[in-house]
Amino acid sequence: MSLVIRAARPGDGGIIHALALELARSHGHEADFSATPRDYEAALFRPDPVVGALIAVVDDEAAGTAIWHRSFSSFRGAEVMYLEDLSVLPAFRRQGIGRALLTAAARLAIERGMSGMHWMMKDWNDTARRLYEAAGAEIEAGFCQCRLEAAALRRLAG
Amino acid sequence: MSLVIRAARPGDGGIIHALALELARSHGHEADFSATPRDYEAALFRPDPVVGALIAVVDDEAAGTAIWHRSFSSFRGAEVMYLEDLSVLPAFRRQGIGRALLTAAARLAIERGMSGMHWMMKDWNDTARRLYEAAGAEIEAGFCQCRLEAAALRRLAG
Repeated sequence: MSLVIRAARPGDGGIIHALALELARSHGHEADFSATPRDYEAALFRPDPVVGALIAVVDDEAAGTAIWHRSFSSFRGAEVMYLEDLSVLPAFRRQGIGRALLTAAARLAIERGMSGMHWMMKDWNDTARRLYEAAGAEIEAGFCQCRLEAAALRRLAG
Repeated sequence: MSLVIRAARPGDGGIIHALALELARSHGHEADFSATPRDYEAALFRPDPVVGALIAVVDDEAAGTAIWHRSFSSFRGAEVMYLEDLSVLPAFRRQGIGRALLTAAARLAIERGMSGMHWMMKDWNDTARRLYEAAGAEIEAGFCQCRLEAAALRRLAG
């Protein structure tokens, strides 16, 4: 197997979309997923983007992605990388691709002068937990995610 | 009581630092807090910053802050506001200042064309839960926060 991790480039919007949608499906959240390939294309390949992606390519086939964005830690007072999605297609799992994506993201964070990498995981996701613990991550349970989506945001803004 | 919510401006690094440190203390995380006033000053008031802050001023005294950063939702394929910290000093609580900060952040997110606002809360924080539910937020439990801080990030990067 030949595995290459590369930065996303213009034209990859469709690949990233397919990989992110697969992750949403596997978490039972397909109904909340409204992004289009064009949305990714626009967000990633604009001047000074806030978001980026790495793509894992196995034997010329896209097998997984790490979508990250710039973030900020109020504890550190510094920019950190936030890992928004880390996903590997089912057919490519258990081959070290998740670890390779995580390692490549860590290298990119260091190259960009970021002081750390943060992300969230579902507490039931033991496969992810094993990967993250083996990579040296500290994992703290007991968080809720809060969201105001477009209509609720407008109602609050009044 | 006169309450004004205003955007942070150069020179506010010390105020934001004091408010963020108070929040870290109240969550029992003071030992993990290493930011300095200068760090905030540098991160917030550089060209094209990724992070911003609102400050609640009560009778000319800083009473609370909302620290936010630009973020990206892979479900929406669009930029969202991530609320990093929402804090009100103990002496100023139960006066609607948290709600006013949240409302001002929602208005700012809309002004900036963001499609939503996301944040995390500790599942034990019933005071925060009531505030967020009253503001119309969807709250989903069962998340863990994962972190690779500087030394662990370097080890993974190899």
